[in-house]
Amino acid sequence: MAADNQRIRGVLSPVVTPFKPDLSPDAERLEAHCRWLLSNDVGLAVFGTNSEANSLGVEEKIELLDYLVGSGVDPSRMMPGTGCCAVTDSIRLTSAAVRLGCAGVLMLPPFYYKGVSDEGLFRNFAEVIERVGDSRLRIYLYNIPPVSQITITPSLIERLLHQYPVIIAGAKDSSGDWNNTKAYIDNFSAQGFDVFPGAETFLLQGLRSGGVGCISATANVNPGPIARLYKTWQEPDADSQQERLDEIRGIFARYPMIPALKAAIANYTKDSSWQRVRPPLVELSSEQERSLINELESAGYNFSQPYQ
Amino acid sequence: MAADNQRIRGVLSPVVTPFKPDLSPDAERLEAHCRWLLSNDVGLAVFGTNSEANSLGVEEKIELLDYLVGSGVDPSRMMPGTGCCAVTDSIRLTSAAVRLGCAGVLMLPPFYYKGVSDEGLFRNFAEVIERVGDSRLRIYLYNIPPVSQITITPSLIERLLHQYPVIIAGAKDSSGDWNNTKAYIDNFSAQGFDVFPGAETFLLQGLRSGGVGCISATANVNPGPIARLYKTWQEPDADSQQERLDEIRGIFARYPMIPALKAAIANYTKDSSWQRVRPPLVELSSEQERSLINELESAGYNFSQPYQ
Repeated sequence: MAADNQRIRGVLSPVVTPFKPDLSPDAERLEAHCRWLLSNDVGLAVFGTNSEANSLGVEEKIELLDYLVGSGVDPSRMMPGTGCCAVTDSIRLTSAAVRLGCAGVLMLPPFYYKGVSDEGLFRNFAEVIERVGDSRLRIYLYNIPPVSQITITPSLIERLLHQYPVIIAGAKDSSGDWNNTKAYIDNFSAQGFDVFPGAETFLLQGLRSGGVGCISATANVNPGPIARLYKTWQEPDADSQQERLDEIRGIFARYPMIPALKAAIANYTKDSSWQRVRPPLVELSSEQERSLINELESAGYNFSQPYQ
Repeated sequence: MAADNQRIRGVLSPVVTPFKPDLSPDAERLEAHCRWLLSNDVGLAVFGTNSEANSLGVEEKIELLDYLVGSGVDPSRMMPGTGCCAVTDSIRLTSAAVRLGCAGVLMLPPFYYKGVSDEGLFRNFAEVIERVGDSRLRIYLYNIPPVSQITITPSLIERLLHQYPVIIAGAKDSSGDWNNTKAYIDNFSAQGFDVFPGAETFLLQGLRSGGVGCISATANVNPGPIARLYKTWQEPDADSQQERLDEIRGIFARYPMIPALKAAIANYTKDSSWQRVRPPLVELSSEQERSLINELESAGYNFSQPYQ
C-alpha cells in the first residue's frame, strides 16, 4: 500500500471538554485549549475518553466540531472520537468529521453489550464505512478494554484491513499492555496500520518498535515535553526525557484522571470554570486539588505557556 | 407516602425492536408486537436491554415512542428505557416519555465510565429529575451490573428516595442475584419503592416477598403464561406454573438471548424480517435456529395467539 504522506501522526491529546455553569459545552474555551495544544505540536483527538465524549450527545459533538473548524482550527490535525453504541450515531458523527476534513476518526467499538463476537464488531465497523461512503475516511480503531470492556482482537483488525485497506488506518491501544501494543505494530504496521500507544508511558518504546506517536490524556497538561520527545527520540537524552514524562504522568495517575487534568488547567490558567465535569464524574475535592498542585510544584512541573 | 394507585405493575416485556432491511426501526411491526403483548396483559418496557435500545439513537427512540402513542398504544402501560451515557440524552428522552404520558421510565445509569462514585451517579439522576422538571415523572432505576458494569447500591437508592420521594418509584433488578432483589424489597418497598425482578425466574419468589411483578426478556415470547402466574400467584398451582416458566426460559437462555427471541418470533409469525438485529449483535445461525425451535416444540411450547 502506498504511504499516505498526509497522515496524522505524533502526539495527540484527547482534548478535555470545558463546560459552562449549566454544563453545556464551552466551545470558546475548548477552542483556546485546542489552539494552545496545536502551538505545542500536539494534535487534537477531541471526543476521546478523557474528553467525556460519551457524556455528550451526538448533536453536541457535531456542533462543537463545526464550531472548531469554522473558527479556523486545522482539521488536518484532528482525529475526533466517533464510535458510539448505536451504529446510526457512529455514522452521523463520522460523516460530520469527514465532511469537515478531519484527518481521521478514533472509533470505539459499540460498548453496551459485553461478550459480543468479532463478527458483530466487524459488521459494526463495516456498516459505518459503507454508509459514510467516502474515500477520505481514515479510521483508527480504539482499543480500551479497561473502560469499554470490549477488545479489538488482531483477527478483527486483520479482517477489517483486508476488506478496507487504507480506510482502516491504525489504532490507539489503551489496553495498558505493552505486549498488545507491540503485537499490533508487529502484525500490521507493514500494511500501513499506524499504532498509537494510549499514553506517553509507551511513547519511546513505541517509536523504537515502529509506533507512530501516542494519544495521551496528560498531553492536555504536559504537551510541550511530550511532543519534544516525539521529535527528538533518537537523541541521547531520550531515555531521561521519558523518565521525566513518566514522573509527571505518575502524579496525575494518583488522582481520578479527568478531574485531575481539569483541576490542573483551572489552576494554571486561573480559570476555575475548567474544573467542571459532567456526571457521573465528580470534580476533585479542594483537598485533592491542593495535594495535586503541591505534588506538581514539588516535581518542578511547568504548565509551559498558559494561554490566557 | 400515599399509595399511587395508577402505578404500572405486573409483568412487563423489554420489547424487542424489529428492523427493516436497511436496519432502520420498523415502527409498524413494533406496534403489532406491542399490541399482542398488551392483549396478553404484558406491559411495555420498550427500549430495554433486549430491545437493543442502546443500538438506537435518541431521535430514533423518540420517533418510535411518538409513533406508538400516536397510533393509540396506551402510554399508561409503557415504561420506556431512557437512561443514556450522556445526561443530556437521558433528559431529552425522559422528557419525551413524560410528555407522552408514559407511566414511568426505566433508567440505566451512565455506563461508559467504570468505577464511578455514588455521588456521581446521584448527580446524574438528580440532573435528569431537575431538568425534566415534571411532577408526573416516575423513575425505575435499572440495575444490570453484568451488562452496564455499574451497580445501583442500596445507599444510592436511599439517598435518591430521600431527595426525590414519589419520583423515584422503584427498580428493575437484573443482577441475577436474588439476595440483591430481596434487599431492595426489604429496605425500600415500604417507602413505595416498587421492585421488579429482571426475569420471571424470580416472579413467584418476588411476589411472595413483596415484589410487584417482573420485567423479563422472555415475556416477548411467553407473555400469556407469565402474566397468568402474576394474576394467580396465590393459587395452589403457582409453583408448578413457575416450573413451567423456568423450563421455557431455560431453553432461550441456552442461546444468545436477543437473537433467540427474534428467531422465535420470526418462526411463529412466519415473518423472517423479525430475525434482524443491529450490530454488534448477530442473528442466530440457521442451525441454532432449528435447534431452538426443536427444543421449544419438544417442550410443548405454544406461542399462544400469533398476531398475524
